[in-house]
Amino acid sequence: MCILDLPQNTVALGESRSVIRDIFEYGNKRRAQIGADKVFDFSLGNPSVPAPKKINSTLSRLIAESDSTVLHGYISSAGLTDARKAIAIEETHRAKMNGSDLCVSYEDVYITCGAAASLAISLSALICPGDRVALLAPFFPEYRVFAEKAGAEVVVIPPSSKEMMPDFDAVERVASAGIKVLIINSPNNPSGAVYDRPVLERLAKILREAQKKTGKMIFLISDEPYRELLYIDTPAPFVPAIYENTLICYSYSKSLSLPGERIGYIVVPSCIQNAEAKKVFASISGAGRALGYVCAPSLFQRMIVECSKEKPDIGAYVRNRNLIYHSLTDMGFDCTPPSGAFYLFIKSPIPDACAFCEAAKAYELLLVPSDSFGIGGYVRLAYCVSEPTLKNALPAFRSLAKQYGLTGKE
Amino acid sequence: MCILDLPQNTVALGESRSVIRDIFEYGNKRRAQIGADKVFDFSLGNPSVPAPKKINSTLSRLIAESDSTVLHGYISSAGLTDARKAIAIEETHRAKMNGSDLCVSYEDVYITCGAAASLAISLSALICPGDRVALLAPFFPEYRVFAEKAGAEVVVIPPSSKEMMPDFDAVERVASAGIKVLIINSPNNPSGAVYDRPVLERLAKILREAQKKTGKMIFLISDEPYRELLYIDTPAPFVPAIYENTLICYSYSKSLSLPGERIGYIVVPSCIQNAEAKKVFASISGAGRALGYVCAPSLFQRMIVECSKEKPDIGAYVRNRNLIYHSLTDMGFDCTPPSGAFYLFIKSPIPDACAFCEAAKAYELLLVPSDSFGIGGYVRLAYCVSEPTLKNALPAFRSLAKQYGLTGKE
Repeated sequence: MCILDLPQNTVALGESRSVIRDIFEYGNKRRAQIGADKVFDFSLGNPSVPAPKKINSTLSRLIAESDSTVLHGYISSAGLTDARKAIAIEETHRAKMNGSDLCVSYEDVYITCGAAASLAISLSALICPGDRVALLAPFFPEYRVFAEKAGAEVVVIPPSSKEMMPDFDAVERVASAGIKVLIINSPNNPSGAVYDRPVLERLAKILREAQKKTGKMIFLISDEPYRELLYIDTPAPFVPAIYENTLICYSYSKSLSLPGERIGYIVVPSCIQNAEAKKVFASISGAGRALGYVCAPSLFQRMIVECSKEKPDIGAYVRNRNLIYHSLTDMGFDCTPPSGAFYLFIKSPIPDACAFCEAAKAYELLLVPSDSFGIGGYVRLAYCVSEPTLKNALPAFRSLAKQYGLTGKE
Repeated sequence: MCILDLPQNTVALGESRSVIRDIFEYGNKRRAQIGADKVFDFSLGNPSVPAPKKINSTLSRLIAESDSTVLHGYISSAGLTDARKAIAIEETHRAKMNGSDLCVSYEDVYITCGAAASLAISLSALICPGDRVALLAPFFPEYRVFAEKAGAEVVVIPPSSKEMMPDFDAVERVASAGIKVLIINSPNNPSGAVYDRPVLERLAKILREAQKKTGKMIFLISDEPYRELLYIDTPAPFVPAIYENTLICYSYSKSLSLPGERIGYIVVPSCIQNAEAKKVFASISGAGRALGYVCAPSLFQRMIVECSKEKPDIGAYVRNRNLIYHSLTDMGFDCTPPSGAFYLFIKSPIPDACAFCEAAKAYELLLVPSDSFGIGGYVRLAYCVSEPTLKNALPAFRSLAKQYGLTGKE
């Protein structure tokens, strides 16, 4: 008999899978058993709004009119120059809308296979053995996976309030003890919280002081897949104008409703990082290469050249947000109104959010417990579903509220 | 001033880039300077044959007829079940054509973003600290990059002959000293060499004996993106029927001319690895997740459901192969006729293949020196170009032959 040693971390990750994907798979099984309309699956952030019409018409035209060997051919690993240029124009425009005259060049843009790739590549490019990555709870669970795979030690910083804002004192303590990276995600998955300019300015000040104290550069990774899904009036800040050493990680998954196609990018703003930016960009190129990312899908890069200005129609999300927030609050559930993204973060009526999620399953309500988001006692509800699904789920929520003795306005 | 420590390996990889991609980028510059028709770029394995017609018609139909949120939505990380089933049927068919009754289940198939992802994920799933990966020179340079990123020590085994066949004695020595993985690539990039069944059986015997001797499981990773591009009569062997612990890494890049779209797969044949296969598959799922691969592009997975049986039209490659092999041989260049893929491996007339490639550049001939393929003294010519490009390049090759005093039949 031969011995087989496998890396325990990858086996464990593969066997446990992501909690979210596990619930999603359970939903698939349940749908097959009792019918799709009977399962109220709020587990996955799969946009329910179709991609803007121009996306599919552009894809169709590209397929009909392009030379196949060019259309589907290899692309330089940093991306198609015209797509990088279109992205640079959009990012520069965002800077300007935020009152900044920072200019993003196409050479600062590295096109990736979506947000997960953007993060895995950025972390692999930045982390040296012994480096620490700080995460602000609640956070997308895969941050921990990517950071640990890159060799980092993860430090979780709990929020200061039920509005899920950063605990600045804690950030200061952690940062001044030495970190290489702080990841922020605004609008936030899972809470829908949005960091406004004063919050970001305060974080920037803390990081700058920590840099001065430790003598080591600290990067802010701003993970922004939800930045167009905002239910407040101010547009998302252009973070590099607030803190110099920022990498923007972006994905079109949510804004253009293309989560399965894997297309996004990293911006390393050279205008502000000067000499170091080239090294960071080189490290990102090297990390992308070593992780097996040859290039982002060619057809979708070509689509971006023409569709980079497309914006989502968030009307449906706004309606869903209002409906579910007010309905659940009226039933007696404790939730904060989300300012962005398409998630509602609900306080579990019992301390054990996993047990609460299991109880919800009995009503075919699929929710994600907050534990894997780095905080206990909450559940995430993804309201990127059809309006009928949301409406039809309300009686089930009512029963659930009753089971836990909640009393609201109803 | 703040200090910035970056991982030296990713910075170096990013700054050096792949030798092949470097030459390709040089070609892009040169094309802009003197016109595309004046540059004879044989650097990149970008298929010159269009994708089979059914690919683009299927893509167009899927875009026209599907619900956008489903078409572009998230897919389970191992892949779309229907695509995995179509692939399993094809692989089982290949086994049968090879006289084996092995049955590949869809649960053995993990769909990836192309061959590079297949390899990076497989190695990350298998390699524990201290493990060694054996590469048979000449080999695709990125094997080393992926293996080292996964934490392996790489051992290069030179070939036994100018036909680029394995040196079995050397493989035996290396394997019995302890390896975790041997990577094979038949048809081979860069040499076009093909391992026939007796060669594979001999390798299998060596690996089995080494397993017995060391008591540790040895995996054969069979990287097969070129297996349909064959200029001999026997179809590519189904390797798991010859050696049990085989992972098949496949990509549609070359066979369906889709290199920029990033779609391929890994097969972990459960029928032969029994209990261990599940663990390996779990580790592959975990590695894919940790490296940031959420799923392979959705649109292309849906295309595979309908097009998995499509085969390339290799007529153009056959013509190019015959033309370039005979022309260069007649000019006095020393090359072995390739049995598969679309590369010609040419012996450099001087020991320094890099210097020879530089000299070729003066005639606008872009070739890749063999050094990064793990062997000195050769150059790789990718003949997946248009026939006119190949024909128009012949006078330049004639001048190059003259410069080096080669005398052939001409």
